[in-house]
Amino acid sequence: MNHVPSKDDLLQAHERIKSFVHQTSVMTSASIDAIAGCQIFFKCENFQKIGAFKARGAMNAVLSLSEEQRAKGVATHSSGNHAQALARAAKIMGVPSYIVMPTTAPEIKKKGVRAFGGIITECEPTLAAREATLAKVVAQTGAAEIHPFNNYDVIAGQATAAIELFDAAGELDFVLTPVGGGGLLSGTLLAAKYFSPRTKVIAGEPEGADDTFRSMKSGKIETSQANSVADGLLTSLGDKTFPLIKEMVSGVITVSDKEIIKAMRLIWERVKIIVEPSCAVPLAAVLKDKEKFSGKRIGIILTGGNVDLERAFQLFDSIEK
Amino acid sequence: MNHVPSKDDLLQAHERIKSFVHQTSVMTSASIDAIAGCQIFFKCENFQKIGAFKARGAMNAVLSLSEEQRAKGVATHSSGNHAQALARAAKIMGVPSYIVMPTTAPEIKKKGVRAFGGIITECEPTLAAREATLAKVVAQTGAAEIHPFNNYDVIAGQATAAIELFDAAGELDFVLTPVGGGGLLSGTLLAAKYFSPRTKVIAGEPEGADDTFRSMKSGKIETSQANSVADGLLTSLGDKTFPLIKEMVSGVITVSDKEIIKAMRLIWERVKIIVEPSCAVPLAAVLKDKEKFSGKRIGIILTGGNVDLERAFQLFDSIEK
Repeated sequence: MNHVPSKDDLLQAHERIKSFVHQTSVMTSASIDAIAGCQIFFKCENFQKIGAFKARGAMNAVLSLSEEQRAKGVATHSSGNHAQALARAAKIMGVPSYIVMPTTAPEIKKKGVRAFGGIITECEPTLAAREATLAKVVAQTGAAEIHPFNNYDVIAGQATAAIELFDAAGELDFVLTPVGGGGLLSGTLLAAKYFSPRTKVIAGEPEGADDTFRSMKSGKIETSQANSVADGLLTSLGDKTFPLIKEMVSGVITVSDKEIIKAMRLIWERVKIIVEPSCAVPLAAVLKDKEKFSGKRIGIILTGGNVDLERAFQLFDSIEK
Repeated sequence: MNHVPSKDDLLQAHERIKSFVHQTSVMTSASIDAIAGCQIFFKCENFQKIGAFKARGAMNAVLSLSEEQRAKGVATHSSGNHAQALARAAKIMGVPSYIVMPTTAPEIKKKGVRAFGGIITECEPTLAAREATLAKVVAQTGAAEIHPFNNYDVIAGQATAAIELFDAAGELDFVLTPVGGGGLLSGTLLAAKYFSPRTKVIAGEPEGADDTFRSMKSGKIETSQANSVADGLLTSLGDKTFPLIKEMVSGVITVSDKEIIKAMRLIWERVKIIVEPSCAVPLAAVLKDKEKFSGKRIGIILTGGNVDLERAFQLFDSIEK
């Protein structure tokens, strides 16, 4: 799709991916509500296929290609959830997937990609090397590149999480998502615009990767410092996501790593579910600005649950001291 | 109730407690199914009020008292989830709850009881001291004693988890629960008998507290060695639970602490939810006896999620070595 997704594009995306992804549950926690002083509805994308909302966008993008485009396969560079999501979507459609991953990517992520038949090409862990390697792979294979977030079909797919959240939770005053490259945030902004126009969308962002916060101030895409435990949010915005965010977002709240880890622990302990650090950023934002959210009905998209348990324990331990 | 609960008693219990407890979700995991070689439906009582199925039985027991019986309050001895469950049920009904707890009970459990207005009497950590202290409290207050499991109203309440599981998952070949005092197991046996007679009910039990396994062999109630990480399952059976189990259970599978911790970790990592060690015993049993369950449709009641994160990390760490 070469245009900003319309209301109809979002509805079609939802219909298109429905049978390939989970309609994840929405959970609440009386004790978190008491702590936060508001009513929070958690959209549990940690229970999504491949453990993250990325399954939605990748599935929609692959399904939106023509059969001819798709036949030569799909390609991307990613060290994270999008890699698995794309490999899975390609496998479902019976086409090859070519994933460029940095040599530093954890073995478990590579294993996840291979489990879905993804063909991995390794490269140096720099953006330049990743892009160059991907260009080469695409040239060699003729595969269609599916960018992790700077792609309108991906954005339309990510929007479907918010559509389901509005359906399940009813009228919301706010929806919060984390922001990395801005795919989920852009999708959520569009979903709110079309399906719940009175709901304000706010982004949570790590202080050590606050490029969206700075981009909103400067009016141009700033580069992420990429320094946070929220390893899913280290990317900078793209030229498709930034304009949508600039136009529609009601605010960006930045939080420290310590606040993120505390919020993550709260979700583990009170909601009894496993979420990754990036996931906890919106709750950290709500707890940081309690007055703003006091007494409100708030939706939070819990983006994923792909965290190594040992790493999580280390994080919890690190803020005890 | 002074008799083994009938089908109608179970339906009434379900109706009675419905608005006071969660109808918890049923979750599945493709990757656990692949590992186990069968199809597993997890009934997530870790998401239940107070974080455990015990909310059901306590609520039903308190609601089943006459107003006159209830007026003077309710009492029990418990160091675990039943204490909180009873305090919560009493608070909802506006009557006092008297909870006898051993001096060794963790501060967090006491805090949980106090949060629901429970009045704690401490005693030495022996069964004799607990029973004597409870008798004294009951004599002083006139409160109605609600035993954690050896009580037909409690059993009928616990049965409602299986009723919901049958509704959600459809025809099941097996249902597995852990067994401690046998309240949940007895309730599940009755629910299967009345609502899904073709489903076999199997208990999972820790090797270090395998009194049910031994009781089935000897034909009389054996005493638990109470030596397992599954701290919710250290109790021996009661004279109301044992006859039901003896008559109806299709088997008791014992598992080691190591197998329990491995299964617990699998649930954390693959289902992305927090469960306590006792919870993992049925999955450990399925993985131990794969042949028996191969290709079958299996329900597992995940009993609760009240585990201290540090303790869980220590457990995971302990089997790495």
